[in-house]
Amino acid sequence: MSETCQQEFPKSERSRVDRIPARGRYDEETVFSIIDAAPLCYVGFAVEGQPFVMPTIHVRDGKRLYFHGANKSRLIQLIELGASVCMTFTLLDGLVVARSVVHNSMNYRSVVAFGSGAKLEKDKDKMRAFRLLSDKLIPGRWEDCKHPTQAELDMTAVVAVTIEDASAKIRTGPPLDVEGDYELPFWAGVAPIETHYGELVNDPRLDSAIPVPGYMERI
Amino acid sequence: MSETCQQEFPKSERSRVDRIPARGRYDEETVFSIIDAAPLCYVGFAVEGQPFVMPTIHVRDGKRLYFHGANKSRLIQLIELGASVCMTFTLLDGLVVARSVVHNSMNYRSVVAFGSGAKLEKDKDKMRAFRLLSDKLIPGRWEDCKHPTQAELDMTAVVAVTIEDASAKIRTGPPLDVEGDYELPFWAGVAPIETHYGELVNDPRLDSAIPVPGYMERI
Repeated sequence: MSETCQQEFPKSERSRVDRIPARGRYDEETVFSIIDAAPLCYVGFAVEGQPFVMPTIHVRDGKRLYFHGANKSRLIQLIELGASVCMTFTLLDGLVVARSVVHNSMNYRSVVAFGSGAKLEKDKDKMRAFRLLSDKLIPGRWEDCKHPTQAELDMTAVVAVTIEDASAKIRTGPPLDVEGDYELPFWAGVAPIETHYGELVNDPRLDSAIPVPGYMERI
Repeated sequence: MSETCQQEFPKSERSRVDRIPARGRYDEETVFSIIDAAPLCYVGFAVEGQPFVMPTIHVRDGKRLYFHGANKSRLIQLIELGASVCMTFTLLDGLVVARSVVHNSMNYRSVVAFGSGAKLEKDKDKMRAFRLLSDKLIPGRWEDCKHPTQAELDMTAVVAVTIEDASAKIRTGPPLDVEGDYELPFWAGVAPIETHYGELVNDPRLDSAIPVPGYMERI
């Protein structure tokens, strides 16, 4: 007997993809894969109606997203108070060039997720968040760096936001011109966008006896 | 007589850089250069206290930012109604690897800008917005593509948001460990993040007699 238990997020009013709904996806696998591949999260919150958007490094743990920051930061304090936040992630995959300029587009994978959270209080939970973030950014580094001290754990706040509803929106493939425009004498296609790490730069204060570790060459 | 008239945005409560203020910048030149280099804008708005963050393609015209979309999109409708929005831009320049994991960081250039706007009503203003966006994404393309028709102009809404206050925040350079940690036997440095266009992919329906234009090879 084969088991299919595809988990889906609820299609809520705030998360539903209204523009071009065929590009919308609600399954956890798609949503999580985009969140995990995104280097940054854009966290939106409102203070007395005034919206703010802060770019923040994130890591996912099941349905929870961890963010860390100074105890006094506005974002951290708001999440502590239980505010609802919007977390948006985007990966740009290509510039889509159509014959008609109004049909130019981007290929992308994006997620908009909503939730609220709380501060992590236990040192072991904070330590887990640091470890997951380190493993996400640089697999292998955790075993070769200085771990947080008690004073550092005390100084840094970590919040966990549970995703309540979320949607992904994905565009792939060639430009879509209107049928009559395909005859026009203009080039059309996609310029893929590629992101990678360049040549490593040693810290000027690095002890010259310390070689570049293998895990840094593989990131 | 030399003239210096460096324009600065006001340091408002909502735009002031509170965390590590030494990384904050308020001059138009810095703010505009980051906005212009960013491929996407993350627009934050609030509907009855619920925050939303939408990734959107943008182009700048002086202190105004143009966004286009469907007439019915929530973001376009809100801006039409005069809502205050937050516009956030980030360029990731490097992953900063410190000896102590809590001092890992990113090198980045970011801007948080606030403003409100209105829909462009005149066709010539909408046409200008389309042209500026085309020139930003693909210099040279405007002269070699189909321009918006009257029906397309009517179908697409363009809004202009005027920046009222904004701040940039920039991190550059090597990791900053606490003094005692420089003796630790761990590698430290920066992995620069590089983004570029890959090999162009022709539209499968492209007339094979149409060569790749020079402006596409130069983007």
